[in-house]
Amino acid sequence: MMNLAIGIDIGGTNTVFGIVDSEGNCLEKKSILTTDYDIPEGLVKAIFEQLQVMLISLKKVNVVGIGIGAPNGNYYNGTIEYAPNLKWKGVVTLVKLFYKYFDVPVFVTNDANAAAIGEMTYGVAKGVKDFVVVTLGTGLGSGIVCNGKLVYGSDGFAGELGHTIVEENGRECACGRKGCLETYVSATGIVRTAQLMLEKSSKPSLLREVSAEKISAKAIAESAKKGDELAQDIFDFTAKKLGFSLANLVAITCPEMIVLFGGLANAGESIIEPTKKYMEQNLLRIFKEKVSIVPSGLKGGNAAILGASSLVWNELKKENFEKVELN
Amino acid sequence: MMNLAIGIDIGGTNTVFGIVDSEGNCLEKKSILTTDYDIPEGLVKAIFEQLQVMLISLKKVNVVGIGIGAPNGNYYNGTIEYAPNLKWKGVVTLVKLFYKYFDVPVFVTNDANAAAIGEMTYGVAKGVKDFVVVTLGTGLGSGIVCNGKLVYGSDGFAGELGHTIVEENGRECACGRKGCLETYVSATGIVRTAQLMLEKSSKPSLLREVSAEKISAKAIAESAKKGDELAQDIFDFTAKKLGFSLANLVAITCPEMIVLFGGLANAGESIIEPTKKYMEQNLLRIFKEKVSIVPSGLKGGNAAILGASSLVWNELKKENFEKVELN
Repeated sequence: MMNLAIGIDIGGTNTVFGIVDSEGNCLEKKSILTTDYDIPEGLVKAIFEQLQVMLISLKKVNVVGIGIGAPNGNYYNGTIEYAPNLKWKGVVTLVKLFYKYFDVPVFVTNDANAAAIGEMTYGVAKGVKDFVVVTLGTGLGSGIVCNGKLVYGSDGFAGELGHTIVEENGRECACGRKGCLETYVSATGIVRTAQLMLEKSSKPSLLREVSAEKISAKAIAESAKKGDELAQDIFDFTAKKLGFSLANLVAITCPEMIVLFGGLANAGESIIEPTKKYMEQNLLRIFKEKVSIVPSGLKGGNAAILGASSLVWNELKKENFEKVELN
Repeated sequence: MMNLAIGIDIGGTNTVFGIVDSEGNCLEKKSILTTDYDIPEGLVKAIFEQLQVMLISLKKVNVVGIGIGAPNGNYYNGTIEYAPNLKWKGVVTLVKLFYKYFDVPVFVTNDANAAAIGEMTYGVAKGVKDFVVVTLGTGLGSGIVCNGKLVYGSDGFAGELGHTIVEENGRECACGRKGCLETYVSATGIVRTAQLMLEKSSKPSLLREVSAEKISAKAIAESAKKGDELAQDIFDFTAKKLGFSLANLVAITCPEMIVLFGGLANAGESIIEPTKKYMEQNLLRIFKEKVSIVPSGLKGGNAAILGASSLVWNELKKENFEKVELN
C-alpha cells in the first residue's frame, strides 16, 4: 500500500485539489469553482464526491490525511475566519465539516503557511531551518519558519507580513488601514503603481497600448522583460518597498533564505534582483550578504496543491501527533 | 546538594554576576568594572577568582552551569561579535575563555535574549508560549519567543528589533544607518527627543531647569510623573514610535504578551499606557485587544543576573543537551 496525502487549496475563485505522494508527485488533480457553492458544506461534499472517483482509479493506496490551504485558515481552530475574498462570512468550521465526510486527519492553515511547509517538504527549503516564504498573489502573505518549525503565533495568525505598515498614511488597504505592504507589493499593488506611474510619467511604454483598467501584473512583467523602461521602473518601485520590508524582517527573525512564491514571483529576475539590492542596502551589517532570495521550488501548476498536501506529512512526523481540536 | 546556576551580565560599564537557585533567588552577587580589563581574559579571570570566594561561603552547593548575557553575544558560536560598546574589538571567543577556568557548561547570548529566557523561567512569561521581551536600555534589544522557544535565527542574531528602520532617512544610528527604532525608543533616543522638543516648543517644563546635555531618561520620566506636559509629550512621541513598531511585530510573530524590560521601562505607565494605545491603533483587526504589554517580572536590581542564569536551566532541560560548539 502506497501512502498518499490529499492537498486542497481553496481560493477566492477556484478550489484545486490533488492526491500527492510523499515525494511531492501529484498523481491526480482537479479544479472546481469555489464560487459555485453558497455554503461551505456544498464545496466539501463536491470535493468528497470527486475524490472518491479519483481514488478508485488509483489502486492499492492509503490516504493518510488531508491538508488544506485557505485564506485566513486557522491551524489551531481548524477554521476559516473572516476571509474577505470568500462568499462565506464569519467563522467557517472547516475541519469539522471535512470530518463529516472523511475519516482521516484533516489540517488547515493559510495558503502562505502551506507554501512554507511545501518548500520545506518538497521544495527549495529542504533542510533549511530558518526561512520565510513570501507569497505574492492578489495579496501578500508570508509563512515564517524558525528552527525548522512554522511560526503560528499565539492564536494561529502569525505571518501577516502583507499587513505590516510600510508607509504611514499610505495607500488604502482592503483591511481598512493605510500603507500596508500588500498595497504596494502584490499583483493588485503593482497594478496600482503602474496606473499611477503611467499617469505621472511621460515615458513611452508598451503598457500605454493597454487601457489603464486592463493592466495586469503579468503584462507589466512581460513588458519589463522586453526592456520596457517604465515597466522596469514599476518593478524597481515595488522591489524597493519589498526589499526595505525584508531587511526589517531579517532583523527580527534572521532567516537564511527568503522564498518568493506565486503570481508576481513568476516575474523572476525582474523582481528578485532589485529586491535583493534594496534589501542589502537596508540590512544591518551583521546580516549583509547572508540572506538569499530565491524563487519557489514547487514547480509547475501544482504548487498550491503540493503546499497543502505537505501539511499532512509535516503533522504526521510530529512525535506527539494528535487530531487538531475542533471548535 | 543544592543545584545552582551562575548568571553573568557583561555590560559596557559594569559586569554583574551572581549565584542563583532554580526558583530565581539570587543568593550572592557582585559587580566589577568591565572597563578595568583591556583583554577579555582579564575579566574572566577576575570573575573566576571572585566566584571562588563567593562559593566557599555557600555550603553544599553544586554549580550546574554558567549563563552569560553580553552585548552582541552569539549563542551558536559562544562569542561576542563586534560589540560597539566594549573595548574588545572583533570576535571574542568568550565561552572558550570561560572553559579555561570553569568545568561546567557555559552559554552566552545577548542581553535581550537572556531577559526573555529570564521572564519565561522566573518572570511574567512563565507558561506563555509566544511573547517578546523588549529591552529599553542605552539601546533597544528584543528577545522573541515562539512556541516556547527563543528564536535565534540562522546565525544567532535574531531579535534586532532596535535596528528595524522606522523612519526612512531618519535619525542617525550608531550602526551607521538612519532611522532605526532605537534612535527614537531607548534611553538615548528619548533624550534626543527631549533636546529637540525643548528647543522647538515654548511650553514651560521642569526639564528647562536642567542644561540640555544633562537631561536623562530618568529625569524625563520623573517630570512626566509629576504632570509636566512637555515631558508627557516626549513620552507620547516615543510611545508612538514604539507602538507602531510593535503593531508590525505582532503581525509577524503574533505574540500574546510583550514585556518591557530595563531602564526606560521603569517609567511604567508613562510609557506602557501610550504605547498600548498606539499599538492598538495600528493593529490589524484580527490582533486587536489580544496582546498585553506588561513590565518585567524580574524585580529588584537582579534582573540582568537572573536573565543570564536562566539560560542554564533552559539549556539543561533540553532533551539532547550538548555543549555549544566552540570557534
